[in-house]
Amino acid sequence: MNNVYNTINQVVDDLSSADSLKGLFHQVHDNVPLPSNDALNEIIQLARGILFPGYFGQSKVSQETIKYHVGVSLERFYRLLKKQVMAGLCFDINEQQPIEDVRAKAKEITEEIVRRLPEIRRILATDVEAAFNGDPAATSFGEIISCYPVIRTLTNYRLAHELHLLGVPLIPRMISELAHSETGIDIHPAAQIGHHFTIDHGTGVVIGATCIIGNNVKLYQGVTLGALSFPLDADGNPIKGIPRHPILGDDVIVYSNATVLGRITIGKGSVIGANEWVTTDVEPGGRKVRKKFRDEEYQ
Amino acid sequence: MNNVYNTINQVVDDLSSADSLKGLFHQVHDNVPLPSNDALNEIIQLARGILFPGYFGQSKVSQETIKYHVGVSLERFYRLLKKQVMAGLCFDINEQQPIEDVRAKAKEITEEIVRRLPEIRRILATDVEAAFNGDPAATSFGEIISCYPVIRTLTNYRLAHELHLLGVPLIPRMISELAHSETGIDIHPAAQIGHHFTIDHGTGVVIGATCIIGNNVKLYQGVTLGALSFPLDADGNPIKGIPRHPILGDDVIVYSNATVLGRITIGKGSVIGANEWVTTDVEPGGRKVRKKFRDEEYQ
Amino acid sequence: MNNVYNTINQVVDDLSSADSLKGLFHQVHDNVPLPSNDALNEIIQLARGILFPGYFGQSKVSQETIKYHVGVSLERFYRLLKKQVMAGLCFDINEQQPIEDVRAKAKEITEEIVRRLPEIRRILATDVEAAFNGDPAATSFGEIISCYPVIRTLTNYRLAHELHLLGVPLIPRMISELAHSETGIDIHPAAQIGHHFTIDHGTGVVIGATCIIGNNVKLYQGVTLGALSFPLDADGNPIKGIPRHPILGDDVIVYSNATVLGRITIGKGSVIGANEWVTTDVEPGGRKVRKKFRDEEYQ
Amino acid sequence: MNNVYNTINQVVDDLSSADSLKGLFHQVHDNVPLPSNDALNEIIQLARGILFPGYFGQSKVSQETIKYHVGVSLERFYRLLKKQVMAGLCFDINEQQPIEDVRAKAKEITEEIVRRLPEIRRILATDVEAAFNGDPAATSFGEIISCYPVIRTLTNYRLAHELHLLGVPLIPRMISELAHSETGIDIHPAAQIGHHFTIDHGTGVVIGATCIIGNNVKLYQGVTLGALSFPLDADGNPIKGIPRHPILGDDVIVYSNATVLGRITIGKGSVIGANEWVTTDVEPGGRKVRKKFRDEEYQ
Amino acid sequence: MNNVYNTINQVVDDLSSADSLKGLFHQVHDNVPLPSNDALNEIIQLARGILFPGYFGQSKVSQETIKYHVGVSLERFYRLLKKQVMAGLCFDINEQQPIEDVRAKAKEITEEIVRRLPEIRRILATDVEAAFNGDPAATSFGEIISCYPVIRTLTNYRLAHELHLLGVPLIPRMISELAHSETGIDIHPAAQIGHHFTIDHGTGVVIGATCIIGNNVKLYQGVTLGALSFPLDADGNPIKGIPRHPILGDDVIVYSNATVLGRITIGKGSVIGANEWVTTDVEPGGRKVRKKFRDEEYQ
Amino acid sequence: MNNVYNTINQVVDDLSSADSLKGLFHQVHDNVPLPSNDALNEIIQLARGILFPGYFGQSKVSQETIKYHVGVSLERFYRLLKKQVMAGLCFDINEQQPIEDVRAKAKEITEEIVRRLPEIRRILATDVEAAFNGDPAATSFGEIISCYPVIRTLTNYRLAHELHLLGVPLIPRMISELAHSETGIDIHPAAQIGHHFTIDHGTGVVIGATCIIGNNVKLYQGVTLGALSFPLDADGNPIKGIPRHPILGDDVIVYSNATVLGRITIGKGSVIGANEWVTTDVEPGGRKVRKKFRDEEYQ
Repeated sequence: MNNVYNTINQVVDDLSSADSLKGLFHQVHDNVPLPSNDALNEIIQLARGILFPGYFGQSKVSQETIKYHVGVSLERFYRLLKKQVMAGLCFDINEQQPIEDVRAKAKEITEEIVRRLPEIRRILATDVEAAFNGDPAATSFGEIISCYPVIRTLTNYRLAHELHLLGVPLIPRMISELAHSETGIDIHPAAQIGHHFTIDHGTGVVIGATCIIGNNVKLYQGVTLGALSFPLDADGNPIKGIPRHPILGDDVIVYSNATVLGRITIGKGSVIGANEWVTTDVEPGGRKVRKKFRDEEYQ
Repeated sequence: MNNVYNTINQVVDDLSSADSLKGLFHQVHDNVPLPSNDALNEIIQLARGILFPGYFGQSKVSQETIKYHVGVSLERFYRLLKKQVMAGLCFDINEQQPIEDVRAKAKEITEEIVRRLPEIRRILATDVEAAFNGDPAATSFGEIISCYPVIRTLTNYRLAHELHLLGVPLIPRMISELAHSETGIDIHPAAQIGHHFTIDHGTGVVIGATCIIGNNVKLYQGVTLGALSFPLDADGNPIKGIPRHPILGDDVIVYSNATVLGRITIGKGSVIGANEWVTTDVEPGGRKVRKKFRDEEYQ
Repeated sequence: MNNVYNTINQVVDDLSSADSLKGLFHQVHDNVPLPSNDALNEIIQLARGILFPGYFGQSKVSQETIKYHVGVSLERFYRLLKKQVMAGLCFDINEQQPIEDVRAKAKEITEEIVRRLPEIRRILATDVEAAFNGDPAATSFGEIISCYPVIRTLTNYRLAHELHLLGVPLIPRMISELAHSETGIDIHPAAQIGHHFTIDHGTGVVIGATCIIGNNVKLYQGVTLGALSFPLDADGNPIKGIPRHPILGDDVIVYSNATVLGRITIGKGSVIGANEWVTTDVEPGGRKVRKKFRDEEYQ
Repeated sequence: MNNVYNTINQVVDDLSSADSLKGLFHQVHDNVPLPSNDALNEIIQLARGILFPGYFGQSKVSQETIKYHVGVSLERFYRLLKKQVMAGLCFDINEQQPIEDVRAKAKEITEEIVRRLPEIRRILATDVEAAFNGDPAATSFGEIISCYPVIRTLTNYRLAHELHLLGVPLIPRMISELAHSETGIDIHPAAQIGHHFTIDHGTGVVIGATCIIGNNVKLYQGVTLGALSFPLDADGNPIKGIPRHPILGDDVIVYSNATVLGRITIGKGSVIGANEWVTTDVEPGGRKVRKKFRDEEYQ
Repeated sequence: MNNVYNTINQVVDDLSSADSLKGLFHQVHDNVPLPSNDALNEIIQLARGILFPGYFGQSKVSQETIKYHVGVSLERFYRLLKKQVMAGLCFDINEQQPIEDVRAKAKEITEEIVRRLPEIRRILATDVEAAFNGDPAATSFGEIISCYPVIRTLTNYRLAHELHLLGVPLIPRMISELAHSETGIDIHPAAQIGHHFTIDHGTGVVIGATCIIGNNVKLYQGVTLGALSFPLDADGNPIKGIPRHPILGDDVIVYSNATVLGRITIGKGSVIGANEWVTTDVEPGGRKVRKKFRDEEYQ
Repeated sequence: MNNVYNTINQVVDDLSSADSLKGLFHQVHDNVPLPSNDALNEIIQLARGILFPGYFGQSKVSQETIKYHVGVSLERFYRLLKKQVMAGLCFDINEQQPIEDVRAKAKEITEEIVRRLPEIRRILATDVEAAFNGDPAATSFGEIISCYPVIRTLTNYRLAHELHLLGVPLIPRMISELAHSETGIDIHPAAQIGHHFTIDHGTGVVIGATCIIGNNVKLYQGVTLGALSFPLDADGNPIKGIPRHPILGDDVIVYSNATVLGRITIGKGSVIGANEWVTTDVEPGGRKVRKKFRDEEYQ
């Protein structure tokens, strides 16, 4: 068995060398670890249980004891999230800033998130309503909340978006990716999305970082709201932060697998057909739905 | 630290108020909790282990002891499922019905599901065969059962479909969504699907609630069998329960990312090409595959 | 309760009968169980922690103690993988081969995989760089490693590919499917992929078994690199092992939901547009991007 | 490997035969399982956390949120205990009694236990005080609650005793044995024990079912308060339910390893020396402490 | 933080040096690990569930499905125990013996243990009966099996004793210590104990390796059946394997905290009083119970 | 069900009232939670694995990789222990001391404990040797380390004692109680114990806080080294910190269930017999072993 141990020892040395690790190893600062996917996952489960009591988490909540359950979950949510926000802030922190200042900022941000939870529930309730109204197969709000991937995704998104607005690095993106992995829907936390938003089925949907989406918008599976291309700087690297994704007005519908690219505006009430490829503005009330193909186009 | 606790106490009060909870909180009836995703997930794992012994669950099953393993798993499957069926029936139960009648109905339905397991295995065996025959990269039935997402999805679907036929609310849809999250394939439990059915790769496939699919049908990733639009009632809400998804005959193949919409019929033996968009009937043996685009269509 | 037990006993007998089990039951050989998804999942987590220390697994690794962590993880990786390689080799082993020879082969293969880990890290580092350069929303290598599904998928793929090259059955495919379920990206372990490879968003991407992909290639979500059709043998079964998927040269970009089918060559530096359907060669530097549709094509 | 399976199959048949199982197998009635040690253990942990918040269970409880924690724990305590009380009642239930009556009784008893928790805490507080006053090594009430086995044991005993008084079979004894295994102190739940009771170290202490212990009593490790002998009935079996263990007045101290046997009375304020063997009454204020042995008694 | 890592690195080097490890480090032979307390604990839980179905393990076993449960548990018991027996044999194996011979021996021994389980249950049933008959507080066989530590201890002992008889090193002792920790009763696996054996309360009981105990014997808590002293060899080390513990005839009773030392014989039907110290033979039917102390012996 | 919720709500209010909680509730200071038994238990398991590699924790450690395992365990031991030491220091901290000073002290103490681990191993090695030499039934050092409760207890004690010497409150006592619960041996962490110390069987042994025990001392089960009585202060409370337990010289043996009380000195090489009760000095080489009782003393 000597050979194996020789191999292991040698590979350990190799993989632990500074040379091999360059850029791939995260050395902790001030003993603050990286944000943790496991902790963020628990935070999301707590948030779901707080926002939709009885549907997620404790399944036997009653009117008389709901306060206890919300209270315990919210206190734990606060504690866990504060640690993760701290970890996020330390991830690319300016080294001059004293650790205690960062700690105070993490506390302040997390408390603000707690304060915003009732508003997050209020807007998610409109999303539940939109999903119910838009699906003939849905039988109750309860079914929507229990089963529909769009509600899980939007809970993550609406929480991640608030964290993004408060300037927390990394964490919002990690929360989005948790939903992406669970539902196949990839919403960048920086995107802006109105109320009564819904996505049917959802797998393959992509919503880019600079998207602005109005109220009462509905997307189907496989829709991309992406960038057409992006300008490079003098060194050939993409310039960061430029608006490059579509703006969708209120009441827009985009059918399955349509691709909408670039900083264009899809006017209020427009309809984009399935499998469409749209790179120019659509006027309000416009219909971007192709005619049936003519027979001669087929083999 | 007073501020934080003030915030927490206030947000707990807010989130626990009847006003904020309206429509988003599930109050249990008769102490029967909501169906549980965790329990349904265990039920699915048990079903996979019962239907494909040695491939799922206990990986060291032998011919001589298989009965013990199937027996223990089946008894547990029965007990867990009975509870979930009960929870499903109570989810939108008519309040006049006495709880003991619901309990008896849950028992009866679950026992019937147990009785149907051998038939479910028989038809899943045809799906394994179809996946093997349709993939040049497959090397054995064992590889199909172990690795191919289509088999996991169809196990969930075929079980959920029987529960749907027996009139259980909510549960079938939750089982479908478990598979949807795991494989990216979204099959509504009400859809009707024949034997020797297969889906290659699968991510992004959507099969709507009123689809009727024949035998020996094969789909590729990203295929939508959806509704074109749906009639609204006088209040502007979608009318529930109208046939609105396609009928696929036997031996149909639909290539990747094709979109087939509306209550149309795709005739026996037809082929639908990749990325196609089909909203009208296709005759038996038809080929809906576009010619190569002409050069002048490109930039 | 007698009825229920009668039913259970009868269904157990039925499901345990040789007749019902034919082809669906894996009888262990020489007491070697089937490969286990749980064990492979742990192996992948260990590999991620070894290759990107501090980002996966132990989140508090420091420069001074990294060797201990890599050492413990690598020894466990070796032990677990050796067992799974053994299980894979036994899955379709020639029965004439003595078990001790298989065991020696499993040891040798696993040791070789350990030896290749530094090279796997080196190439994954180029993939991280490519993802960073290609996304204006990315802020650091660390964000790429922590959040981007493409890095998780490629870690699985690059490990699975080496196992495939060393002739291990089943395991590579199971590892691919773990990534497929997690990210919606389905890369066959037999595909050949150069350095600096990246996939944006990723859900719905399919890369077939005989694909050959050059360096600096970028794909977007929903791209299929698939087979157009495959020749059948005299019995009507697909002939295995024939090259049937595309070859992509260096520096190729394929936009979202494009479908590239068959053993065609996409020349160095080509660009394939979103939703394109490509079944013929594209010359080096070619642009397969459709013009905007003319107005008369729309309803 | 055939032999092994033959053996296993044969031993399974043997061990499952009615003959071999006689008296050793518990067949469930009405689908109510036996009381569960795991559930009782969780119930005890919940009770400890409810009675001594911050010391057991949630270690970060604050004044502002304590109600939430007590509320959630108490609701779970109620639900779990109700199930176990039901299981206990069914353990030796008269078969004529309808199951619904038993269920109602279980609910009533459990609710009564909940009502008695504040009184249980009040008396346990006196036990904490007694332990503190009696040990020069103790530095605070907190140390007593966190570390001293006597407090763990008495929490179990005082809860088990109330369950015993309410007529629940089996459960009280199981709860005692959980403490016995954890601390080596064996208090029968039927024993009657006053306030300000303490036991130092505790391992090996036995307190019999018909003991009556006054207030401010202190025992040391290894003390037995047992039965001297017990009368047999005509069939030679012990007659159940006869008082057969000692009565200890207020303020009694019994030193380590003393053995006090039979229905005798140890008067108020008496002291029993270490390793003593006492089978007759001791008058109030008496000292049962042997003189030093004379030299000639030693080898 | 440098200091800490310096300290850690230095202490790791020190603790890993051959010098520091001498005699305290177990280097595995042939890749066979040490016996595992966790595995032995699971084996014991399985054995209890197999021997007393419904009382341990699965609490909802029914007559109709008991075979499945016993079958699954027994197969797992066999597999786990075979591995531990192998580990035990390798613990002090003669290095000349080929590993395959040891493996065959482990298989043979484990199979023999399986064969002896029905007999182990038969004798444990007599122990249950003895505990019931000897305790006026016991209400049913079920209570004895569920609660009484003596049954847990004797299940471990009777299994460990068979393993000892079959020549397995280390494992029997580890199984005894599991019971010792759980119940405070320390029975050496080499001791020989007849049927209808019981121990009341039990904490502190010690039964030495060369004890021989007849049928219908009853011990109380704190009883020691130990060695008086043991002869040393020329080097001053104790000579191993000499009979040095008591022989107890049938129907003997030993009351609490009595100490019986040396290779003496306690005759059939004798009674030893509480706190007695016995180092010489007691004739059949003898009573070794001290008179009450005279008044003048007390202070 | 209203009644139950009324009861629960009322009992929650009652149990959460400041009045009911007085002295029984631990309000955290500066957000530092109480020491945790779960964390201390993990710390002990890590220490056992570090001190006796291969016997505890990782059972497959090899010479070539031992450093990795010790390194990872030691880093985790350091991190966990630092947190617990901090919690211990905050438990009864002087409120004037700034939290950062306490944190620095916790770090310093923990680092010092790490530095003392090699010495702790050295002395534990002498205890292993003593246990082996003193037991004719022991077959190897490995058996002693794997099975004997004395080694588990002494590992806890020797670690707890160092923490006590460094002035950490509460933690040492909690560590002792973990061993007490596991083995029935209760050693106060403040006791001073020499090398080559052993305890046979051990259940019921008590060693008081001010004991001083020499080298090569051996105790048997049930031995008490306790206080005879303790002086009270003017208020009737015991005076803390006065020497009140025995001093045992080198080479002393105390047989089972002997009780040695008070600040007396048992001289070098003395022997105390089983069940003895000793409250006065014993000269060096003395034998406190009673003659056999005379016949007339018995009934």
